[in-house]
Amino acid sequence: MPDSTPPPGACCAPLAEAPLSAEDAADLATGFKALGDPVRLRLLSLICTSDDGARVSDLAAAFQVSGPTISHHLKLLREAGLVDDAERRGTSIHYRPRSEALNVLADRLAAPPTHG
Amino acid sequence: MPDSTPPPGACCAPLAEAPLSAEDAADLATGFKALGDPVRLRLLSLICTSDDGARVSDLAAAFQVSGPTISHHLKLLREAGLVDDAERRGTSIHYRPRSEALNVLADRLAAPPTHG
Repeated sequence: MPDSTPPPGACCAPLAEAPLSAEDAADLATGFKALGDPVRLRLLSLICTSDDGARVSDLAAAFQVSGPTISHHLKLLREAGLVDDAERRGTSIHYRPRSEALNVLADRLAAPPTHG
Repeated sequence: MPDSTPPPGACCAPLAEAPLSAEDAADLATGFKALGDPVRLRLLSLICTSDDGARVSDLAAAFQVSGPTISHHLKLLREAGLVDDAERRGTSIHYRPRSEALNVLADRLAAPPTHG
């Protein structure tokens, strides 16, 4: 089953429109912290650009690092609600992006036009 | 003078459209890492929603934490290219958001529609 929890930060207006509450900021920071690492960003990008979901073994091969290292980063992306490991085929898990969650983070960041 | 360096990640397509290069990922991760902390997100939100720029003393009062703590977080936001400390009036520095940089990060994150 795909994860049905709401994406981090799905509650509210862009951060440039109204001051963030402490709770909302903690929620959003979880998403951005998961994105604040070059390897996780590249993994996420590979997962997003993979037509049919991405397997740990494919991702590990693309980075020439170990499966467990990739699995650790995928766990952080999953815990932040940015990817799903929903699809299991035989013994492999295919990872997919949670596009809605990425769009929520993008929408919260988008700034209004600069003053004056 | 406002900071004229290009915002992090200003080079390229959304991460869901093409796999990120290592260099591009490192650049983008700097921006997201700066956003991956609840206090920094709230500071940024206060700076964005302040009509006339925000001073360290105003920000410290809003959080009931020390000026040096606020200054430390502002330094990280500034180093990531997300705020400017361009405007000095008398002894106070007024911080302003770099809206272009926030929009670049938002654009890089925005996901295309999910595969059919």
